[in-house]
Amino acid sequence: MDEITFAVVGTGGIGRRALEVSQHKDALTPVAACDRHGTAIDFDGLDVDELLAATEGNIDNEVATDGGKRTDGSRSSSALRSDGGAGATAAEGGVKQHGENKGVVASEQAQPSEDSIQDIIDHGDGIDAVLLALPNYEHDFIPRTADRFLEGGYSGVMIDVLKRSRVIGMLDERREAFEDAGITFICGAGATPGLLTGAAALAAQSFVEVTDVDIHWGVGLKSGYEDNRGTVREDIAHLPEYDIDTARELSDEEIEAIIDDHDGVIEFEDMEHADDILLERAGVCDAEDVTVGGILDVRSDEKPTTTTVSVTGRTFDGETATNTFQLGDETSMEANVNGPALGYLQTGVRRNRAGEYGVFGPVELMPGF
Amino acid sequence: MDEITFAVVGTGGIGRRALEVSQHKDALTPVAACDRHGTAIDFDGLDVDELLAATEGNIDNEVATDGGKRTDGSRSSSALRSDGGAGATAAEGGVKQHGENKGVVASEQAQPSEDSIQDIIDHGDGIDAVLLALPNYEHDFIPRTADRFLEGGYSGVMIDVLKRSRVIGMLDERREAFEDAGITFICGAGATPGLLTGAAALAAQSFVEVTDVDIHWGVGLKSGYEDNRGTVREDIAHLPEYDIDTARELSDEEIEAIIDDHDGVIEFEDMEHADDILLERAGVCDAEDVTVGGILDVRSDEKPTTTTVSVTGRTFDGETATNTFQLGDETSMEANVNGPALGYLQTGVRRNRAGEYGVFGPVELMPGF
Repeated sequence: MDEITFAVVGTGGIGRRALEVSQHKDALTPVAACDRHGTAIDFDGLDVDELLAATEGNIDNEVATDGGKRTDGSRSSSALRSDGGAGATAAEGGVKQHGENKGVVASEQAQPSEDSIQDIIDHGDGIDAVLLALPNYEHDFIPRTADRFLEGGYSGVMIDVLKRSRVIGMLDERREAFEDAGITFICGAGATPGLLTGAAALAAQSFVEVTDVDIHWGVGLKSGYEDNRGTVREDIAHLPEYDIDTARELSDEEIEAIIDDHDGVIEFEDMEHADDILLERAGVCDAEDVTVGGILDVRSDEKPTTTTVSVTGRTFDGETATNTFQLGDETSMEANVNGPALGYLQTGVRRNRAGEYGVFGPVELMPGF
Repeated sequence: MDEITFAVVGTGGIGRRALEVSQHKDALTPVAACDRHGTAIDFDGLDVDELLAATEGNIDNEVATDGGKRTDGSRSSSALRSDGGAGATAAEGGVKQHGENKGVVASEQAQPSEDSIQDIIDHGDGIDAVLLALPNYEHDFIPRTADRFLEGGYSGVMIDVLKRSRVIGMLDERREAFEDAGITFICGAGATPGLLTGAAALAAQSFVEVTDVDIHWGVGLKSGYEDNRGTVREDIAHLPEYDIDTARELSDEEIEAIIDDHDGVIEFEDMEHADDILLERAGVCDAEDVTVGGILDVRSDEKPTTTTVSVTGRTFDGETATNTFQLGDETSMEANVNGPALGYLQTGVRRNRAGEYGVFGPVELMPGF
């Protein structure tokens, strides 16, 4: 495949690991990375080692800094702002700061910026794909960010590792705009939704009717915890007692208290993961036949349960059976999110270069390697 | 998806079951089916029930009737001939004949034909995809059949359920011709290669380096044996004592003797299945790191072993792990071949309509549902 240039928006746990994994992919050249503090751009390819080392103590795990609905059409409503907005106070607590520069600006390759997303858009001509690595923003942040790229005249691939089912519809509403702009938007391209959704779609192929898809994940996050506090907060929002808004308002101390209450091991049931909508929109099964749950252990790197996808259906010859897909317990969440994310990114660029635009998911695309 | 019309070339076990499974797929309309005896064509859609019922006792499990190398460029060298050639005598033994008409001609929808492939080509304008359901022909039959469609000016999808690794290179040699003609050729689109190859490619996504892919299948074929004698013969050609040529020359009695020698349960190791080349050409791993084996039990419908894909690799963070994909034991070979074949067919038509031509495999495409 031809060389692919890509940008990472968000340099928390996912964005940083995406940069790291991309170093194992010959076809991929990271040329830009940004967080709400600034932007690093180098079309010869970022020095990933320097960037990761320089920012190791400066991971910005802030929660959404932009609580407002977009009402005035201005781009500032989805800027990665550092200047306030709902949640900004809690957000500051999410930045591990060493030295005087925050977040990505600790890298010598980065410049401070008031609107780093605009920096990426302004350089969009040289960027084949933009990976939105923002798991902990409010659910409409990604659609609104897509609007900014549309307004800025970007043409290329946008890819996210979102989780929430409700986001897919918001992206589908923009399908025509993406088609007109030449944007290939790949949604839900991490582990779940993502790799595991694709595995479910493949497993469905034995059947003429799928009656049940069960995705159950295990994550051991002891050593990855500091890097992935945003993801943990996102998970907590799936507990019955919380939602996106209330989880965003939790202080770090409150998060710790919740974890303590569960002795470090939190079990999730009936999570709102977009696997359901992604499978339904591809005709595999009804969204209501899909269940996603899992167990998160933040005090061990061992997985508390083996991540398993079970797809039950009826064959053309009248049998009922269950096909399964399991991830080896030694594969980390970071490996299972970022490998697929970059795999889908490569496939997205291929689709984009073939002139196919719109909104696609892991049920329709096989990730590249 | 828009309506898709397709033809089935070959009405043995696979072709017949493909027609049957397609009745569960709203988007698919079978409009043609042929074997070496004749052709059924109806652009309003074949009456699959009539065709299957009328030909139930007339399944043509003949081995290749065309042993000659193509030397003169004439189309007859890859016709589905009934008029002789190496293996013709043995071939006659493979036809279960009830009544006076052989094979598909027993259906009231079919007409006898001396060159049924040409019939399909001549009607190619109305056929979106051609499924080559010919597992037991010699290995270059499919590339030579592709040549006939190229010469005949066909533009659309061709899809096969071939097994042999060596065929992929022969198809890749025709890539430019396919591109010029507007043909999207999907190769290895059954179970293995096919569904299980795709599962291996997905399972690889956790890793930055794949060290080992092991595909091990189980098939219980008691009730499906009569329909799938061609596939059994193909499998026997994978035993160390045989090859494609010697297996083709075996009489039915000799096949039975081999089965008896094994008490009905034949184990295969290191099979030449194209999974290896398909994974290598997509960059997932080296062909030599892929092994395919399995156990066939022709005297039970229970699978003698659970079909399992194991993919072992190294993650970006230095772990070694194995991801697995397993088919439920109640899923028949027919379900696991024909579901994927029609799934890949749908995706192939989508690619073709988007203007993407050439040679593709299950590592690059996610089958539709």
